[in-house]
Amino acid sequence: MRLRMTIAYDGSGYAGWQRVPTGAAVQEKIEKVIAGIVGRHVGVEGASRTDQGVHAAGMVASLNWEHPRVGPAELRRALNALLPPDIRVLEVRAAPTKFHARFSAKRKLYRYRIQNAPVADPLRRGVCWHISHVLALDAMRTAARTFIGKHDFSAMAVNPGYKRNTMVRTILKCHVRRRGDEILIEVEGDGFLYKMVRTIVGTLAEVGAGRRTAASVAALLKARDRRLSGKTAPAHGLCLVRVMYR
Amino acid sequence: MRLRMTIAYDGSGYAGWQRVPTGAAVQEKIEKVIAGIVGRHVGVEGASRTDQGVHAAGMVASLNWEHPRVGPAELRRALNALLPPDIRVLEVRAAPTKFHARFSAKRKLYRYRIQNAPVADPLRRGVCWHISHVLALDAMRTAARTFIGKHDFSAMAVNPGYKRNTMVRTILKCHVRRRGDEILIEVEGDGFLYKMVRTIVGTLAEVGAGRRTAASVAALLKARDRRLSGKTAPAHGLCLVRVMYR
Repeated sequence: MRLRMTIAYDGSGYAGWQRVPTGAAVQEKIEKVIAGIVGRHVGVEGASRTDQGVHAAGMVASLNWEHPRVGPAELRRALNALLPPDIRVLEVRAAPTKFHARFSAKRKLYRYRIQNAPVADPLRRGVCWHISHVLALDAMRTAARTFIGKHDFSAMAVNPGYKRNTMVRTILKCHVRRRGDEILIEVEGDGFLYKMVRTIVGTLAEVGAGRRTAASVAALLKARDRRLSGKTAPAHGLCLVRVMYR
Repeated sequence: MRLRMTIAYDGSGYAGWQRVPTGAAVQEKIEKVIAGIVGRHVGVEGASRTDQGVHAAGMVASLNWEHPRVGPAELRRALNALLPPDIRVLEVRAAPTKFHARFSAKRKLYRYRIQNAPVADPLRRGVCWHISHVLALDAMRTAARTFIGKHDFSAMAVNPGYKRNTMVRTILKCHVRRRGDEILIEVEGDGFLYKMVRTIVGTLAEVGAGRRTAASVAALLKARDRRLSGKTAPAHGLCLVRVMYR
């Protein structure tokens, strides 16, 4: 049976989703718990590698499952009983045989939270990037529209460390809004390059701070030079909200 | 000069506001940092003792301050530079000579967050009490109204460990509302007995779960017997939101 899982995690304590030589990965934690249940290794594929420290509210993963007594509902309960509280399995359900969390994914939605207030809220310090100077929301909104559409995002990708066939991605939504003292930046696309959302956010934060104009962002994107973009925003403000299929 | 400070903290790592023999207290952390600035002990009085693990978004504290160069604004900056990130000073300002954070306080507002969803959100596990079974909001609202007014709250106070002159308190607001997958319980009163808000919340949660009726709460309050009330709700869902003066 092919299974599809939806997983939420607090990325603070992890080196990211994917198994890496250094530090614990969320994928690894889940695979270890499953190995304990079935007595052998079962590979769990995630829709996205999230970077070290990035959170997820709706990571999707797929796996093959054969167990005479443990069905999807029982597996969810067993995983939540055995996993640490910073990883929760929200749903486990049967999926079509060809379903693959990563290759079947059509779009992903990320949300970045900036707390824009004079002093950081200690209760949100793990989930928001705190910026104390006032950010100009309108300028950020104008700049955000530049990213929408199909572009070569070389200017927004940090040291990939591996060759990609193409740096072209399509961004369907790049939305900036206020919620209380937070500025939320939601970016939805068909795929993302390494640290792309965080570079977009870092660049928008510089526009909001008045250090670059909203109009300058188009030229920046066209130049395809990462060195001209804003700083990469910190990981802890970012969350993979949803992965969309079909 | 008399100063009034507004302080937010993540209570997870503390034994509460007030100095205790066991574990670090928020008050103590602040007093130590101030002692480091001025070279002697300066007492900082808080509006409320919060229990171990309880958070604050708007604790108020008062202190006497004499320093030739460090004014209120500089003190705020110095404190935030020297305190750990789980304690933040939101504001420091001059106050009337007779201002006392505790004795001048007229009302306090507490907010309790319940995440009522099948699976806990790992990113809110430090600030919400997770309840997986569906709670009946209407019944909780009806029961909450029972607490409004002037009552002897012996039924809602846990082992005070010290004698109080009176167990009578006035509750001005006891409000239950939904926000996303959370149920927020806001309680405002002229004062609170030991663990009173958490006992109210624990009792309301039992009403929401159908384990007692909304109508039964009035008799419970009248009986003044703590053993008849609901379990004390966990500390990490509770936050001191605001202290009101004059």
